[in-house]
Amino acid sequence: MENHFKFFTSIQVRFAETDAQGHVFFGNYFTYYDVALTEYLKAIGCGYQEMLADGVDFYYVEATCQYKDRAFFDEVLHIHARIGKIGDTSFHFEFSVVEENSGRLIATGRIVAVAVDHNSRKPITVPQKLRKAVQAFEGTASS
Amino acid sequence: MENHFKFFTSIQVRFAETDAQGHVFFGNYFTYYDVALTEYLKAIGCGYQEMLADGVDFYYVEATCQYKDRAFFDEVLHIHARIGKIGDTSFHFEFSVVEENSGRLIATGRIVAVAVDHNSRKPITVPQKLRKAVQAFEGTASS
Amino acid sequence: MENHFKFFTSIQVRFAETDAQGHVFFGNYFTYYDVALTEYLKAIGCGYQEMLADGVDFYYVEATCQYKDRAFFDEVLHIHARIGKIGDTSFHFEFSVVEENSGRLIATGRIVAVAVDHNSRKPITVPQKLRKAVQAFEGTASS
Amino acid sequence: MENHFKFFTSIQVRFAETDAQGHVFFGNYFTYYDVALTEYLKAIGCGYQEMLADGVDFYYVEATCQYKDRAFFDEVLHIHARIGKIGDTSFHFEFSVVEENSGRLIATGRIVAVAVDHNSRKPITVPQKLRKAVQAFEGTASS
Repeated sequence: MENHFKFFTSIQVRFAETDAQGHVFFGNYFTYYDVALTEYLKAIGCGYQEMLADGVDFYYVEATCQYKDRAFFDEVLHIHARIGKIGDTSFHFEFSVVEENSGRLIATGRIVAVAVDHNSRKPITVPQKLRKAVQAFEGTASS
Repeated sequence: MENHFKFFTSIQVRFAETDAQGHVFFGNYFTYYDVALTEYLKAIGCGYQEMLADGVDFYYVEATCQYKDRAFFDEVLHIHARIGKIGDTSFHFEFSVVEENSGRLIATGRIVAVAVDHNSRKPITVPQKLRKAVQAFEGTASS
Repeated sequence: MENHFKFFTSIQVRFAETDAQGHVFFGNYFTYYDVALTEYLKAIGCGYQEMLADGVDFYYVEATCQYKDRAFFDEVLHIHARIGKIGDTSFHFEFSVVEENSGRLIATGRIVAVAVDHNSRKPITVPQKLRKAVQAFEGTASS
Repeated sequence: MENHFKFFTSIQVRFAETDAQGHVFFGNYFTYYDVALTEYLKAIGCGYQEMLADGVDFYYVEATCQYKDRAFFDEVLHIHARIGKIGDTSFHFEFSVVEENSGRLIATGRIVAVAVDHNSRKPITVPQKLRKAVQAFEGTASS
């Protein structure tokens, strides 16, 4: 599945991110997803800071993670990311986490975001700039 | 919906849990859920540490959060929790987060856990002790 | 030493706050200190939010923690706090962490804060309101 | 000062690491320091995991941070690190945090660690292997 992703960012597991079960605390994957989507947006030419400058902000309305295997201190994780679906005011980030050396699938996930006006905080149509950037990067096969 | 929950624990939002958008970072709700389920298990008489002593551990296989409203520094959140469904080897924790003063619904969520043998880490049948404790606490109406 | 403190707040160790060494991650004590000073300021009648409303903010210029013993998941920690010294523009929060059941001294610490104008972010004289509140709460023996 | 450091690791500020004041939460610098010392130990040929395999663990007995300037989301920080002093059973990690583009000095810090036997948890003499590795990397001028 993760081989359909065209983008990933690498994150090395920090000691602070492990817990007393000896592996990454389950809640920390959402931080990893947040890092990956930030880098993904830059990679496709629609960085979050630019969006903000255009008056567009995002709110997350749902976040989900499926845990497939454990990840450990100092392991390097590839956080694959893409925007897999764009609706009227919302869009879906999709994730897949793979450990670099072993190729173990660690987790999959999704964040549903809504575009909002930075001032009024009201939902707005997903900007054309983002739609086009996703299409250009992911290609027609992804839509 | 949250009025069907018989248990909640209170969490006061820490400054460390906010982010530069001015509200609670979305990933931190999973930490809140983890605290609430720990307290819930104690409340029904099946604490995590006792489970461990019995050779039973839990792994989370899925975690989800729906974000309904923002929560801010120093607000007190009621993290409602219950076990809403018990299968053969898995069970569902369900959550609802309500701000104490305003009654605002902040988030809902779910964590799916699997019972595993503490040593072999293999899935096992959900212990009878936990099934009975949930039934006694939640009553027949919840099943 | 901690018996000279007139204030403490209780924090129950969360699983998320432990690390793979099995105890509380060393960096998390600073979050505990931050919670304790927030509650201390409220207790003496000078809450952070009121300060902000008066146009006063704080910046931390130094934070230190001495680790005396390990703390574990689900233990309840008393985070003792006080303002122990007030200079012209700066003041010192002092901390002592004691485990509730065993009385083990877990850590001591200090945060040096500087009062700043909320808008200009420039250092200002520590407000009289705060000086008086500390004196009233801690008594003359503390100065 | 930071130009006396021969090692640094880069950390890009995550959104999760910011707080409602709009900059990096003060406690998170200790996580950055922990990452930097992990990488430093690898760089000098004495990785933490190897140490553990040799039966040596470290406990932190003190951690300090001086805050010089604010750091913001997405900025890249150079976390300079070195072992600056080695005593009988303890040694000092020293840190300096510089923002990559602007060269702003963000923070300085220190972590005092004690070498302990992994099983007994009792302090032991700092291993010769570590002493020699530091000397070889930092040169005689640092001692």
